[in-house]
Amino acid sequence: MSKRIDEFKKERERLNEAILDRDNRNIQRFFALDGAVYREGALSAKTKELLGLVGSLVLRCDDCITYHLAQVKEAGVTDEEFDEAISIGLVVGGSITIPHIRRAYQTWKELSK
Amino acid sequence: MSKRIDEFKKERERLNEAILDRDNRNIQRFFALDGAVYREGALSAKTKELLGLVGSLVLRCDDCITYHLAQVKEAGVTDEEFDEAISIGLVVGGSITIPHIRRAYQTWKELSK
Amino acid sequence: MSKRIDEFKKERERLNEAILDRDNRNIQRFFALDGAVYREGALSAKTKELLGLVGSLVLRCDDCITYHLAQVKEAGVTDEEFDEAISIGLVVGGSITIPHIRRAYQTWKELSK
Amino acid sequence: MSKRIDEFKKERERLNEAILDRDNRNIQRFFALDGAVYREGALSAKTKELLGLVGSLVLRCDDCITYHLAQVKEAGVTDEEFDEAISIGLVVGGSITIPHIRRAYQTWKELSK
Amino acid sequence: MSKRIDEFKKERERLNEAILDRDNRNIQRFFALDGAVYREGALSAKTKELLGLVGSLVLRCDDCITYHLAQVKEAGVTDEEFDEAISIGLVVGGSITIPHIRRAYQTWKELSK
Amino acid sequence: MSKRIDEFKKERERLNEAILDRDNRNIQRFFALDGAVYREGALSAKTKELLGLVGSLVLRCDDCITYHLAQVKEAGVTDEEFDEAISIGLVVGGSITIPHIRRAYQTWKELSK
Repeated sequence: MSKRIDEFKKERERLNEAILDRDNRNIQRFFALDGAVYREGALSAKTKELLGLVGSLVLRCDDCITYHLAQVKEAGVTDEEFDEAISIGLVVGGSITIPHIRRAYQTWKELSK
Repeated sequence: MSKRIDEFKKERERLNEAILDRDNRNIQRFFALDGAVYREGALSAKTKELLGLVGSLVLRCDDCITYHLAQVKEAGVTDEEFDEAISIGLVVGGSITIPHIRRAYQTWKELSK
Repeated sequence: MSKRIDEFKKERERLNEAILDRDNRNIQRFFALDGAVYREGALSAKTKELLGLVGSLVLRCDDCITYHLAQVKEAGVTDEEFDEAISIGLVVGGSITIPHIRRAYQTWKELSK
Repeated sequence: MSKRIDEFKKERERLNEAILDRDNRNIQRFFALDGAVYREGALSAKTKELLGLVGSLVLRCDDCITYHLAQVKEAGVTDEEFDEAISIGLVVGGSITIPHIRRAYQTWKELSK
Repeated sequence: MSKRIDEFKKERERLNEAILDRDNRNIQRFFALDGAVYREGALSAKTKELLGLVGSLVLRCDDCITYHLAQVKEAGVTDEEFDEAISIGLVVGGSITIPHIRRAYQTWKELSK
Repeated sequence: MSKRIDEFKKERERLNEAILDRDNRNIQRFFALDGAVYREGALSAKTKELLGLVGSLVLRCDDCITYHLAQVKEAGVTDEEFDEAISIGLVVGGSITIPHIRRAYQTWKELSK
C-alpha cells in the first residue's frame, strides 16, 4: 500500500481510539455497529464494501471513500469493477461528485502500485 | 407484482416519455446513460442495482428506492441480502433514513407477495 | 394558471402568514430577505428566478421548485430555456433529481395551459 | 394530542415493529441506539430533543421533525423556545427548509390544542 | 485557546469583513441575522450554540463545527455534554459524519488545554 | 488569471484526462454531457455558468465553485452580478454555505487582478 494511504489509516485509527477512550457508550456502540454491517454475510464483504464506497461517493465524503477504496482493493475488486461502481455513483450523485472521483482515481492508482 | 408498484412503474414510464418527447438532447443523453450504468458488466446487474438502491437510500429519494427495489427483487435478491444492504444504508446515512426504510420494507413486502 | 398551482400558492401564502403572525423577528427578517434577493438588480429577475429554480432542483425541494416554476413562467421563460436550465440541474445533481424533474415537467405543462 | 399526530405515531410504531420483526440484529442495534442518545443525561431530555429537531430540520426530514415536535412538546418546550429553535434551523439550512417549517408550524399548532 | 483555533477565528473574521466591505446589503443582512439567532433568549445561548453545533455536524461543515465548538466551550459546555451532543449528531447523520467527529474531538482537545 | 487558479485548472485537466484514459465509456459520456449542458443555447453561456455556480454553492462543492467562478469571470460577469448570484445561493442554502462563500470571494479577488 502507498505511504500516504498507510498514514491515512494509522491517523484514522489513532483518532478513533481517542474518541473511544472518552468512554461514551453510545458512540462506542455506533462504532461497533459501523464495523458489523460490513462483515461477510448473505452478501459478500466485497459487495458490502462496494455499497459503502458508492454510499460514501454520493454523499461526497473523501475520508469515507479513501477508507472503502482500501477495503475494496483488499477484497480483490478489479479496475473494471471499480470503474463500474464509480460510474453508478457519478450518475446517481451528479457532476458534484466529480472532484471526489478525481481524488478516488488518484487513491486507486496509489493502491494499485 | 403488487398493484401499487405496477402503477408506480407505469406512471414513471409515462412521465419519462413526456420528458423525452421534449426533444432536449442533453436530457435524453442523461436518461440513456442512467440506463447504461446498471447493465450487466464486470459487476453483475444484481450488484449494480444494490449499489443504486443504497445510493438512493442514503440520498433519501423514495421514488428511486422504489424503482431499485423492484429491480433487485427481479434480480433475485433474498430477504437476508435486502436486510444487509439496508443496514449499510442506515449506518452510512443515519436515522434520517429511517422513514425511507419504513417505506422500503412496505414496498419489499408488497413485492414479495 | 392551473387550479392546482393556484391552490398551492394560496396555501403557501396562508401558511407563511401563520408563521409571520408568530411575531418572531428573526424568522420575519429571513422571509423578507428571501424576497429581496430575487428582485431585479444587476441580474434580471428572470435570471434570478432561474438561479432559484436550479438551486431548488439540486437540493430536491419540490415546493421550492413549484414556486420558482410559477415565477420563471411569469418572467417569460420559454420551453427551450426551461429545458436547458433543467438539464444543468440534472447533470449537477444527478439521477436522484429525476423524480423532481418529472414533477417539474408536470407543473410546467399545467402552467403552460 | 391531535388525531393526525396520534395516527402518525401509531403507524410509525407499527412499521418499526415490522422492521424489528425481521430479526436483523444490526438494524435492531441501530434502533436501540437511536432511542438511547435522547435519554436524559448530562444534557436534559428536552435539550436533546431540540437537538434532534434542529438536526431533522436542516436535513429536511418531515417524519423526523413531526416525531421530535411531539417529543419537545411533551418535554414542555414553549412557543418562544420553539420559534427560536426553528429560526436557528432556518438560518443554518436556508430557505429550502421553509416548506418543512410551514408543516412544522401546522404540527405545532395541532399539538398545542 | 489554542493557536490554531485562534488563527482560524482571526482568518474567519478577516474574510467576513472582506465580504461585508463589498456593501451587498442582502449579504450583510444575512450575516446580521446569523448572529442574531444565537443570542440568549427563551433558550439560553449555550443551548442555541449546541443547536448550531449539531446542525453543522449533520450537514458536515467543518468550519461551522469549529466555530460552534469554540462557542460552546466558552458557554461552559462540559466534556459529557459535548459527548452527548456529538452522539446525537452521529446517530442522526450516520457514519459519514465520523471524519468530522474525529476533527471535532481534536478541536475540543485543543480548546480544553 | 492568478497562479493558484491557473494551477487548479491544469491539475483538474490532468486528472480528468487520467480518468478518461481509463476508457470507461459511461464515465466518458458523463463528462461529455457535463460540457454540453453549459454551451450557449436558448440561455446564454453566461447565464448557464451562473446556474452552475449557484448549484455548486448550495451543494457546497469548492472545486466546482472555483471552476464556475473562472467561467463566469471569462463570460464577463461583473462584481454586482457576482454578489447577487452569491446572495441567492446564501439564502437558498443557508449559513453552512458561508465558509464556501468566503473562499469564493477570495477566488473572485484573485480572478479580478
